Amino acid sequence: VTVSISDADPGRAAAAEALGAGRAATFHGLAGRCEHVVVAVPPRAAAAAIAELLGLSSSLTVSDVASVKSNVVAEVETLTPDSDRYCPGHPIAGRERQGPGAAQPELFENAVWAITPGVGTRPEAVAAAREVAERCGARVVTLAPDEHDRALAGISHVPQLIASVLAAQLGGAGAHAAELAGSGFRDTTRLADSDPDLWAEIVGLNGGPVAMVLRDVATDLAALIAAVERGDLEAVRAVVAAGNRGRRLLPGKAVGGRPQWAGVGVVLADRPGELARLLGAAGSAGVNVEDLSIEHAVDHPAGFVDLDVRPEQVDTLLTALAGAGWAAHRTR
Amino acid sequence: VTVSISDADPGRAAAAEALGAGRAATFHGLAGRCEHVVVAVPPRAAAAAIAELLGLSSSLTVSDVASVKSNVVAEVETLTPDSDRYCPGHPIAGRERQGPGAAQPELFENAVWAITPGVGTRPEAVAAAREVAERCGARVVTLAPDEHDRALAGISHVPQLIASVLAAQLGGAGAHAAELAGSGFRDTTRLADSDPDLWAEIVGLNGGPVAMVLRDVATDLAALIAAVERGDLEAVRAVVAAGNRGRRLLPGKAVGGRPQWAGVGVVLADRPGELARLLGAAGSAGVNVEDLSIEHAVDHPAGFVDLDVRPEQVDTLLTALAGAGWAAHRTR
Repeated sequence: VTVSISDADPGRAAAAEALGAGRAATFHGLAGRCEHVVVAVPPRAAAAAIAELLGLSSSLTVSDVASVKSNVVAEVETLTPDSDRYCPGHPIAGRERQGPGAAQPELFENAVWAITPGVGTRPEAVAAAREVAERCGARVVTLAPDEHDRALAGISHVPQLIASVLAAQLGGAGAHAAELAGSGFRDTTRLADSDPDLWAEIVGLNGGPVAMVLRDVATDLAALIAAVERGDLEAVRAVVAAGNRGRRLLPGKAVGGRPQWAGVGVVLADRPGELARLLGAAGSAGVNVEDLSIEHAVDHPAGFVDLDVRPEQVDTLLTALAGAGWAAHRTR
Repeated sequence: VTVSISDADPGRAAAAEALGAGRAATFHGLAGRCEHVVVAVPPRAAAAAIAELLGLSSSLTVSDVASVKSNVVAEVETLTPDSDRYCPGHPIAGRERQGPGAAQPELFENAVWAITPGVGTRPEAVAAAREVAERCGARVVTLAPDEHDRALAGISHVPQLIASVLAAQLGGAGAHAAELAGSGFRDTTRLADSDPDLWAEIVGLNGGPVAMVLRDVATDLAALIAAVERGDLEAVRAVVAAGNRGRRLLPGKAVGGRPQWAGVGVVLADRPGELARLLGAAGSAGVNVEDLSIEHAVDHPAGFVDLDVRPEQVDTLLTALAGAGWAAHRTR
């Protein structure tokens, strides 16, 4: 595949060329060189660039990577009669850093790449968008633009905002609240570290679905508050049970649900090589560590590592670690 | 320290004795043997046990480990005139498994152990509760019972319920939502895997503070919904910025805020020993991996590991990994 690169900042296109990404070109020059163009600009600027490209050559197909779709599709249809050569796309992968220096060859490896063609979208546009995604190593999921935006509101935009609201509560939760906070609070609010400007833009472009999901959450929350206030513990139990069911919908490594790893906990000194030594001992015993989490101790030079392993390998691992002098035990 | 153990199930006390935890005793026998008793029973049963123990000997001091405090303190004061010998406690540590077989010597190591004495609590009761916590390796934080319950509502009980509400949304978010969900959604809803019965009991005993924090969240959410609906992106930005500030209140490994680790990403084959080999290469280069997270690929035998290291060690690590054949790059 011959790749041409255009950027509003010619220096960035040149840097990308120097890194081997393709050949730098002007925006208008793309039309003469390309069969298919992927527009990767901020969501608010996407539709204008897509429409202009479609007007430059009647044989060109175009896709994009904007994280909201209905808004962009509607604007393209307003701007050009050639929107049937535009196949909307959204790779669910990205970074918090920008520019060619932040490029990662494997960024899209195993990622989901959503495409949202309409009934009138030309097959060659869909095929080109799909080929780009698959050549990048991504898995294509086809859905309607509004279905995409509704799903992203639920799994990304609203969780982001709720995490922010929850994290902000810490300011009014009393002098000791932050000190008492454990890993549960940290995980639940991790998204709250995100960039305010970026999220204001995304929410602005997907306001309808975001407001709809937020209203659903608010309705559930109001019912929960009423249940807590009247001491209806059966209703509280039902809310937690519904959350259990929601979590089981997430795809896991194994087909048919999340794998149930067993846990092995080990105390770890905070010095170079300790974790490697531990995992080396596991590897020597033929035990694959499927996942792990590290609990950092505050003001103390030790940590606690929880290893996820197959249940049938727990005894092997415990024996191997005991033999190598580790204090290890089954955690679940 | 001589330890005596009593359990409603004598078999459990015997098992604990066999494991070396102390000497089994009857509940009433504790009074003759002990100076201080730690009551570790379900929160709803705590006050009755505490009051009965206080009545057995006028020299005994008592503490407990219940995860809600105001409710227990009020009930003890109703049941006995000797509540000045009771120092309420709550170690912020625990497991999802029960019984002496699930014991971990280091469970309380570096954990925060809250105690909530009143103005009338006798100094010897406070000193004994504090000594138990410190001998277990925990760090004691002293606060008022209502302050404790308000803080726990904000950092534990409400995040739990919000995670459940968010996870439950997945059921109505469309056929593709679960497929598109990334690590952000998984982290934000991890707590939603918790036990419905346990959480109904905790929420029942801390209903006032939980309802109060939930109402605060609902108020913030209503303001956010209104902002999204009228397209007030400045207000959305302010919500995300407030979340940024809340997160910065969390204590980190370093004093004065969370450490800013640099990130190094590496692609990992899914076979035993890969992670150990990677960390071995880091250790050999003298680089300490402060934390790491593993991105599992769905339906693909490879993963992506993101290593947290000190910024000044990034170049050393990248050079070492490149020399050992790893595809590694700086991620942040």
